Amino acid sequence: LELEFVQWLQQNFSASAEIELGIGDDAALLNIARDHPDSSLVITHDTLLDNVHFQLGKDDPRRIGRKSLAVNLSDLAAMAARPIAVVIGLALPKQTDPLHLAKELYLGMQPMLVDYCIVLAGGDTNVWNGPLAISVTAFGLASTKQNWRRASALCGDVVLVSGTLGGSILDKHFDFEPRVRESLYLREHFEIHAAMDISDGLLLDLHRMTAASNHGAIIDLDRIPIAQSARDLLARDVAEGIADPRSPLDRALSDGEDFELLLTVSEATWELIQRDAGCPIALTRIGTIIEKSGLYAATDDQLEHPIAPRGYVHN
Amino acid sequence: LELEFVQWLQQNFSASAEIELGIGDDAALLNIARDHPDSSLVITHDTLLDNVHFQLGKDDPRRIGRKSLAVNLSDLAAMAARPIAVVIGLALPKQTDPLHLAKELYLGMQPMLVDYCIVLAGGDTNVWNGPLAISVTAFGLASTKQNWRRASALCGDVVLVSGTLGGSILDKHFDFEPRVRESLYLREHFEIHAAMDISDGLLLDLHRMTAASNHGAIIDLDRIPIAQSARDLLARDVAEGIADPRSPLDRALSDGEDFELLLTVSEATWELIQRDAGCPIALTRIGTIIEKSGLYAATDDQLEHPIAPRGYVHN
Repeated sequence: LELEFVQWLQQNFSASAEIELGIGDDAALLNIARDHPDSSLVITHDTLLDNVHFQLGKDDPRRIGRKSLAVNLSDLAAMAARPIAVVIGLALPKQTDPLHLAKELYLGMQPMLVDYCIVLAGGDTNVWNGPLAISVTAFGLASTKQNWRRASALCGDVVLVSGTLGGSILDKHFDFEPRVRESLYLREHFEIHAAMDISDGLLLDLHRMTAASNHGAIIDLDRIPIAQSARDLLARDVAEGIADPRSPLDRALSDGEDFELLLTVSEATWELIQRDAGCPIALTRIGTIIEKSGLYAATDDQLEHPIAPRGYVHN
Repeated sequence: LELEFVQWLQQNFSASAEIELGIGDDAALLNIARDHPDSSLVITHDTLLDNVHFQLGKDDPRRIGRKSLAVNLSDLAAMAARPIAVVIGLALPKQTDPLHLAKELYLGMQPMLVDYCIVLAGGDTNVWNGPLAISVTAFGLASTKQNWRRASALCGDVVLVSGTLGGSILDKHFDFEPRVRESLYLREHFEIHAAMDISDGLLLDLHRMTAASNHGAIIDLDRIPIAQSARDLLARDVAEGIADPRSPLDRALSDGEDFELLLTVSEATWELIQRDAGCPIALTRIGTIIEKSGLYAATDDQLEHPIAPRGYVHN
């Protein structure tokens, strides 16, 4: 498998100027220091597993491949890093046609690799007596002047989310566009205090951000941008006569795999963002960072009350 | 699992100056350009799988962890790169005690991480209904002035191997020391033309090197440094009455997982290496690079004849 597949990769995933030595040697070589003297290297890694993050018999392998790449790019976006390269590890089940499956996975990644000018720098392909496992390590470049972290939310900051939340299980968890370009625009134009991507649910991820920053947050429940899918799921649950269907708001607060940006900025920056007609991303103010730790919910007609961080984790 | 485990990692695998931001954010941040302006970044990735590269029920998880790291360091050694960081992806079987297994795997890596000053820069830990899979992506720094490749063997070069070969299945495939320090010494003191590590058997890997270099090689079968384990395996096979036991030479030529260095140098450099009393590694001249493609074997009393590249690949 290995040799034929490496040749196929070399033919279909061309090298680029970013990389001095790519697929086919013991390792890949990148001249970060020479080519990007003002950048930091950002590294992220996510392993996606059959029956945990996707279902091989049911989901199209190209969508699975695309998702494996996209979740890693979402992590780079959360660091305001421009993606430059990936390495891919595949453990392919013997029972399938492993070579065909490997190609489908890579072909699912290809449009996004091309779109973002990302080099396939290498990887490892194995066949085994186990389910499909996909390991992606992605590399990006962040500015040494402004790189984003989750631990740097400041008291009084405005809490922002991009896009709409909830119900990603319907389609978005496969087809979402990682917020790469949007985060680079925001990095370029505004001073962002704290940032992360929402992968395990708004409440859980906001809890992580505020805990890392030694602060808390008040969330304005009336302002959460709820995705249409979260409403569609309620309609479906009602039609199917499900006893205790989850509300769209509850889904927006705690469904996993939204892959939107969670940001904190000063009130002054928030004013600037609102006035920027060129901003390529819809941001919604959903709350405020406070000194006291913990998460608190408020609505227009209810006083704030503690709210438990909940979300979706795969294990 | 994730939160408790991340905290355990943060406590046990401390950060270092190499890394600006480590475990616990969306990604890790390394200031390669600022800290190492004359270096190239070298990236390698190997996935190790249960019942392919190790057997979980039989092999000690700490040895499995150590091996997963060591095979990646061997790839860095083959590029004459100094290891600086790794990211680890684990897919842990539900049926075990996943947290305990994860800790044992990491504890198996720890001495080698400490020994080589390698930072654990991040990773991903999942539990699933499948066998153990370990993905390691390792990062190193190579000199922009001399980095090693497999495709740069020159006609007339002397072919060298480090250590002894064959029979690694007895113990060496777990306990080998990657040739990291040795390769850095060689890089520092000598001009190496082509380099790779021997992971799938001498003949197969030499075939890959010569093919990538558009050359061939004559191998001197009388000079192959045969490991004691290859002889021990013959003695065992004979004692057990195995009909057609493999000879120690055959094992040295084609057994996998030796993780020794395969190098080519000029005759002049080989003279210098032989005269260097400080060289920390035993190198043996086993052949010569020739213009004609293919591998040819010769002995003191036999003319050269073509020899098929054979070795051990896991799939």
